Amino acid sequence: MSKYGMYAKFTAKPGERDKLVDILLEAAAGAELVQECELYIVNVSDTEPDTVWVTEVWSSKEAHDASLQQEATKASIQRAMPLIAGVESIQIRPVGGKGI
Amino acid sequence: MSKYGMYAKFTAKPGERDKLVDILLEAAAGAELVQECELYIVNVSDTEPDTVWVTEVWSSKEAHDASLQQEATKASIQRAMPLIAGVESIQIRPVGGKGI
Repeated sequence: MSKYGMYAKFTAKPGERDKLVDILLEAAAGAELVQECELYIVNVSDTEPDTVWVTEVWSSKEAHDASLQQEATKASIQRAMPLIAGVESIQIRPVGGKGI
Repeated sequence: MSKYGMYAKFTAKPGERDKLVDILLEAAAGAELVQECELYIVNVSDTEPDTVWVTEVWSSKEAHDASLQQEATKASIQRAMPLIAGVESIQIRPVGGKGI
């Protein structure tokens, strides 16, 4: 089965980026226990102050989709939603390299 | 010192994507020996057949910049150049998460 990757771009409402980062880092900490989640890195931008990028790699698209149904994920999304002005994502298929 | 991250998007010339992927995977194999390179993942797109994304995380921007001066890196770039129609990149600053 192919691995599944995503670059998810969150645009925070003005002044809310750091709160959003904290919630995403908590989600990343939860992902430490999820074997199917291989990578969940939270990044900011030095040129776009409201932008947060999350780099995700999962063992499969199914594993990623299933994670969205978890109660912990739903609770994180609920907390993050009021801080977010927009979301875009780039779907990718990891084929190899260092770190996966 | 801040970590340094990048999403590098390569657009291959038509029909050349897989050759480009092979060169990038060789570069990733070389990066296994480079401690300052924490992540170098080669990805393709299921919707854009000429696109290759590379996810990079380095211990610092300086470490990334220094890698571009290595002979092995220059040789890889020389081999890849004829296969590439365009390059864009998104600079990011990893702050934490699973996998770094």
